[in-house]
Amino acid sequence: MNSNTPDIPEHGGDVIFSVNGTSSDLEELSNGSLDYSNLLASLRKRTIVSDEVVEPGTLNVLSAKYESLDYDTCENHLLLDEERKKGTRCLIKKNLQRWLVFLLIGVCTALIACAIDISIEQLSEIKYATLSKCVDKFIVEGKLYIPYFMYVCFNIVPVFIGASLVAFVEPIAAGSGIPQVKCYLNGVKVPQVVRIKTLVVKSVGVVLSVVGGLAGGKEGPMIHSGAVVAAGISQGKSTTFNVDFSIFKHFREDHEKRDFVSGGAAAGVSAAFGAPVGGVLFSLEEGTSFWNQSLTWRTFFASVISTFTLNVVLSTYHGVPGNLNYPGLLNLGQFEKFSYQIYELPFFILLGSFGGLLGALWNFLNYKLSVWRIRYIRNKWLKVTEACLIAAITATAGFLMMFLIDDCKPLGQDPTKFPTQMYCGDGEYNVLASIWFQTPEASVRSLFHDPPNTHNALSLSVFVVVYFLLSCATFGLACSIGLFIPTLLTGAAWGRLVAVGLLQLFPNATALVHPGKYALIGAAAQLGGVVRMTISLTVIIMETTGNISFALPLILTLIAAKWTGDFFNEGIYDTHIQLNGVPLLPWEPPPFVHNVYASEVMSHPVVTLRTIDKVGHIVELLHLTTYNGFPVVDPPVRDEHGRPTYGRLRGLILRSQLIVILQRRLFNETCDSWENVSSSIFRDEYPRYPTIDEVFISNEDKMYTVDLRPFMNPSPYSVLHSTSLSRMFRLFRALGLRHLPIVNDSNEVVGMVTRKDLARYRVCRHQGKMYVDELLISKEL
Amino acid sequence: MNSNTPDIPEHGGDVIFSVNGTSSDLEELSNGSLDYSNLLASLRKRTIVSDEVVEPGTLNVLSAKYESLDYDTCENHLLLDEERKKGTRCLIKKNLQRWLVFLLIGVCTALIACAIDISIEQLSEIKYATLSKCVDKFIVEGKLYIPYFMYVCFNIVPVFIGASLVAFVEPIAAGSGIPQVKCYLNGVKVPQVVRIKTLVVKSVGVVLSVVGGLAGGKEGPMIHSGAVVAAGISQGKSTTFNVDFSIFKHFREDHEKRDFVSGGAAAGVSAAFGAPVGGVLFSLEEGTSFWNQSLTWRTFFASVISTFTLNVVLSTYHGVPGNLNYPGLLNLGQFEKFSYQIYELPFFILLGSFGGLLGALWNFLNYKLSVWRIRYIRNKWLKVTEACLIAAITATAGFLMMFLIDDCKPLGQDPTKFPTQMYCGDGEYNVLASIWFQTPEASVRSLFHDPPNTHNALSLSVFVVVYFLLSCATFGLACSIGLFIPTLLTGAAWGRLVAVGLLQLFPNATALVHPGKYALIGAAAQLGGVVRMTISLTVIIMETTGNISFALPLILTLIAAKWTGDFFNEGIYDTHIQLNGVPLLPWEPPPFVHNVYASEVMSHPVVTLRTIDKVGHIVELLHLTTYNGFPVVDPPVRDEHGRPTYGRLRGLILRSQLIVILQRRLFNETCDSWENVSSSIFRDEYPRYPTIDEVFISNEDKMYTVDLRPFMNPSPYSVLHSTSLSRMFRLFRALGLRHLPIVNDSNEVVGMVTRKDLARYRVCRHQGKMYVDELLISKEL
Repeated sequence: MNSNTPDIPEHGGDVIFSVNGTSSDLEELSNGSLDYSNLLASLRKRTIVSDEVVEPGTLNVLSAKYESLDYDTCENHLLLDEERKKGTRCLIKKNLQRWLVFLLIGVCTALIACAIDISIEQLSEIKYATLSKCVDKFIVEGKLYIPYFMYVCFNIVPVFIGASLVAFVEPIAAGSGIPQVKCYLNGVKVPQVVRIKTLVVKSVGVVLSVVGGLAGGKEGPMIHSGAVVAAGISQGKSTTFNVDFSIFKHFREDHEKRDFVSGGAAAGVSAAFGAPVGGVLFSLEEGTSFWNQSLTWRTFFASVISTFTLNVVLSTYHGVPGNLNYPGLLNLGQFEKFSYQIYELPFFILLGSFGGLLGALWNFLNYKLSVWRIRYIRNKWLKVTEACLIAAITATAGFLMMFLIDDCKPLGQDPTKFPTQMYCGDGEYNVLASIWFQTPEASVRSLFHDPPNTHNALSLSVFVVVYFLLSCATFGLACSIGLFIPTLLTGAAWGRLVAVGLLQLFPNATALVHPGKYALIGAAAQLGGVVRMTISLTVIIMETTGNISFALPLILTLIAAKWTGDFFNEGIYDTHIQLNGVPLLPWEPPPFVHNVYASEVMSHPVVTLRTIDKVGHIVELLHLTTYNGFPVVDPPVRDEHGRPTYGRLRGLILRSQLIVILQRRLFNETCDSWENVSSSIFRDEYPRYPTIDEVFISNEDKMYTVDLRPFMNPSPYSVLHSTSLSRMFRLFRALGLRHLPIVNDSNEVVGMVTRKDLARYRVCRHQGKMYVDELLISKEL
Repeated sequence: MNSNTPDIPEHGGDVIFSVNGTSSDLEELSNGSLDYSNLLASLRKRTIVSDEVVEPGTLNVLSAKYESLDYDTCENHLLLDEERKKGTRCLIKKNLQRWLVFLLIGVCTALIACAIDISIEQLSEIKYATLSKCVDKFIVEGKLYIPYFMYVCFNIVPVFIGASLVAFVEPIAAGSGIPQVKCYLNGVKVPQVVRIKTLVVKSVGVVLSVVGGLAGGKEGPMIHSGAVVAAGISQGKSTTFNVDFSIFKHFREDHEKRDFVSGGAAAGVSAAFGAPVGGVLFSLEEGTSFWNQSLTWRTFFASVISTFTLNVVLSTYHGVPGNLNYPGLLNLGQFEKFSYQIYELPFFILLGSFGGLLGALWNFLNYKLSVWRIRYIRNKWLKVTEACLIAAITATAGFLMMFLIDDCKPLGQDPTKFPTQMYCGDGEYNVLASIWFQTPEASVRSLFHDPPNTHNALSLSVFVVVYFLLSCATFGLACSIGLFIPTLLTGAAWGRLVAVGLLQLFPNATALVHPGKYALIGAAAQLGGVVRMTISLTVIIMETTGNISFALPLILTLIAAKWTGDFFNEGIYDTHIQLNGVPLLPWEPPPFVHNVYASEVMSHPVVTLRTIDKVGHIVELLHLTTYNGFPVVDPPVRDEHGRPTYGRLRGLILRSQLIVILQRRLFNETCDSWENVSSSIFRDEYPRYPTIDEVFISNEDKMYTVDLRPFMNPSPYSVLHSTSLSRMFRLFRALGLRHLPIVNDSNEVVGMVTRKDLARYRVCRHQGKMYVDELLISKEL
């Protein structure tokens, strides 16, 4: 996915101190006499990372390339010094800055959302107005192929540009971005995901894709945009533009950044759907291990500011400044208060289950298609071609439907802007043209709000089938586009179809069987069946439709959809995350792992450093291994038999810290002034530390020593080797750890557990029985 | 508060193995030759629990009587055995049972809520109909003292019964119950809080208090009821009624019970306010350390079921079965869509700040009053008398207002059921009588929905002052009554007053200055200023008013109210929690404690047990100490100087487990059949284990030994003595721990940290500087 990131496992570890062996590798290493090729070979052999070529598309492999974010604060001496010196005032200042950043996140996310929205609206209007006019002009001349050809062109050209941007400039900007944001919030460092470049490609890409008529929406990309905005603002610098504003320097660490990103994602949801509460819930549901009240509060603030800014800008744009009636970009319109009777509820549950079934089918088809894409569409040009092809098919399908299905309604009933007459009589318009000649979002609105009898059963049925397949083919293309809208559209269409059927059966029930009501239920069911988000989705739909009195039917529908869908497969986001082999940690440890112990899970033996170690040794280790965290230990003593023991755990130091130490030459022998050494030396380099190859260390330097104690985390969370997997999992998940050293009874480091070691254990169901499977970790994925 | 609970600290610990001393107490203990009175004296002396008499009402003391719930699962060998034997089927069964329990919780909570609501409605109707008739009858005869006397009686009699119930039967049922539920969800074992007896007293008490005309509402008690229902149902047995249904035995542990209680609290909120989403957020905000998706999902389910059941029952009761328009008990009526302009927002923020100010004042007054009550109203009869007095004052204040303020309006405008004429002309009614002669909830509804000009400025002003003081005096009485409604009422009144003032200033702004809109803003501001809950309160108000388009003004108002209030003091629930000295753990560790280390915080030396220990030793320890958790260690060896070292940590065993072991005589020498020994032996006794005095151990028994290894938690989370307070705090909070053993470098137990050791560190502000204060722990509180 990204060639800049080296394929390094978090930690595997190799023998430095062999307990049973006779030779002490440690001594050899410190004497510089070790045969490195041997050590390297043994490292390779002992690591759990498999070199086998993995069949693409399997769900049971983790990729070795993803690392963890570090949510645990490194409370080293430098930090304590800093705290002691700066005191209360600094604390208050930092807190105020945090609020300021959240304010900016809210404002900027909303502005970007507005820009995307307005661009889409303007461009689409031009496109569909032209098309509509053309159809009616050329149909008289019998040259219907001309508007068809134009339609295809109008689709292909923007899609071509958008797909090329994604494929050649920033592949991570493909898709909705929600899976990536979800991974990031879960604590996985997804490369490039919060870069400015990604934001630009994503924003431009989503405008082009939606204008290109693809069956997709702008909501997912907006959430992703919010996340990038948050990461960008909070860091006060951009690597893409090579600018450092030297502000917010305190926030340059994984912990703070992840907090801001969760605020950004919430602001994105809030802007996309006008759902500030739903946004907060989305962030919490996807990301936060530990519910932190002040963070929640700030996230909420960002969401509210985002909605507010959007309101102000859009109301001004639409010529009614100050009238705050633009709750969100996905404006599903004002719903009248639907009434419902208690005996309708079982029926809603049934519809929910049906949505779950359809959603599971959609997920299955999309999964198969994605596997096929992974196997065969590997070339960038192929990806672009595929996107253009789908765009052409979309145009063709739409055109064929208008052409073949004879569904005319008198003018003045439908809210479409460009009524197309086609083969209809004078004073009538083609209903299918009105659905196709607008953005998918506007179509959803039509299906929710059009009066009864606007759509007939045949056109709805065909539309459901066509759009179901189109949206399935679209998701996973190399385009920045989300799936909320097409899924809602499919669901709304079959929901309306159900209403049409019901009205056929019970012609007197017009008061109760409102097509808009069933369209809403259908849309919720379909969306619930595909994405399987739970409480946040409910709140988002409630906020989007502005309809609280209808909460109960919605909730029941969504629960039914989720349960039915979960019976067959996982949500679409989770499927894609698994396809990428991301080591996402689930909410709870898998069952039946109480009797799996740390000693079985951990990577061992471990590469350790001593509290005061030689520069040469450190450099060699950094060159030789690819691990990101090293336990710092006391020099091991020899036991009564003269064999070296393990080293006693003293702390934990990160690769990035070591590199900064080497780069700044903070050696015991050379560094005179420790005055300027503070925590900020690490923040200055964050997040892209140099590699060890970029640090020049002379041969003389290698004889010096470094005291790691002021820099290391002096009390990392560690557990005994007899700790069960479930206990480690809970510790890891609740505290957002990256490395968990495993110690023996004498507090000597015997192993190391990282995210991938825990994510490897996953529950599988087979023939009705659940068991725990150990996934493979592959470098190839 | 409760005499059944012994005043035992979680753990303090005393010397068993003296490192520097010359004598080994251990040996003496095992030989039964130790001078216990000496040991006891040293225990007393070394504990951090202070025996000083604490001035009542101070906020800086923790009570020694509160213990922690055990949220961490004890993964001992018995549990592993059980898991291995039962496998997948058991897991699925347990999961289904969980859903069933949540279903039952939702249904039962709603039914109880309905019963309370209908009782209040019926009784109030009789009361106020009689009063209204009486006033109009006797005013003609000039004998106004008769209805006044009746009013006082109608208030005093129910309040007398209600207060007596609370004072003599179950004191924990006093107040709203929200602080207690909050503590329980935070992980504090509040004695009696989830007992059936408490539920009965609370339910009957709240009906009597509200009917008695006190300035209070039924919402808080309903939330508490939900929590009790959850605890009761999930355990499948009741100690109060001495019934054991032998169902749901698997859920008899703190971890599961707390999960169910959080569902119950959510169902309670949902029933009280018709706010299922708000209910879930309430539970999460108050309770859950770790956001667990499946728990959230189940909680949501219980909330929805609760709303639904309530809907069905109430719609049937009101004669419109199947019409699901009774969203919650706090029915604030349907709001029309208030429109607002962008320039109104700063004004809303101003109103929010004003609400924050008033709320802070309310909290301050209530705090002072509570301290006075703690000091002087200690006798039960005094408490009942005080409640009756306040009831009489309420009646007097109401009557005086109707009598003195001449506010008449033509009939047919106000929705009151019993218009009282009093001194008004024919065809008119007394507005103040209409406010006072109904439940406070109905008054809130009036203030929100009455047309403009219904209330004049004078009556509103007097009402605000009177009700502000009355509600302040009422909260903290020995009555089951909450503060949501009176706070909303005060706020709605001054909000409406603001609207009246605005209309005076801008007579042309009638379209914008809707009194109901300002009443809503005022109510939100006042409530936010008093309780300071954040996101859950916003959602509750949004759901209660059914008004999403008005979300932004509400959110801004609430934020302003919270910030303003927080500048002066804490929320009222937190103040009461602090007054009770409950060791509630805040969300984050206090700042500036990175350099406070475990060795300073921990209780030490520790009382430990050996993996195989003598029965006599165990019995003596249990008699001698009051600690609830004992580290299990290897027999300590002597170091080179012949001094015994600390024991190496092998596990952790609870007092309750030891007592069950002794009671069942699971001794190495006597127990032949280990077949019947399973995890269930501990669950059978949960939650009220016998005391050590209730277990008979003969002298012969004392010579036997017990192997603690199968029973103990074999890998408790433990940290090094050099770990900082903030790291311990995070570990403790995120995982819901009860005991945290502190070990040295050789994994030998040197201390123990419990909830109170962490809760003792609290941030204080003094002259603009923040510093960390160490609270006292007192047995006296």
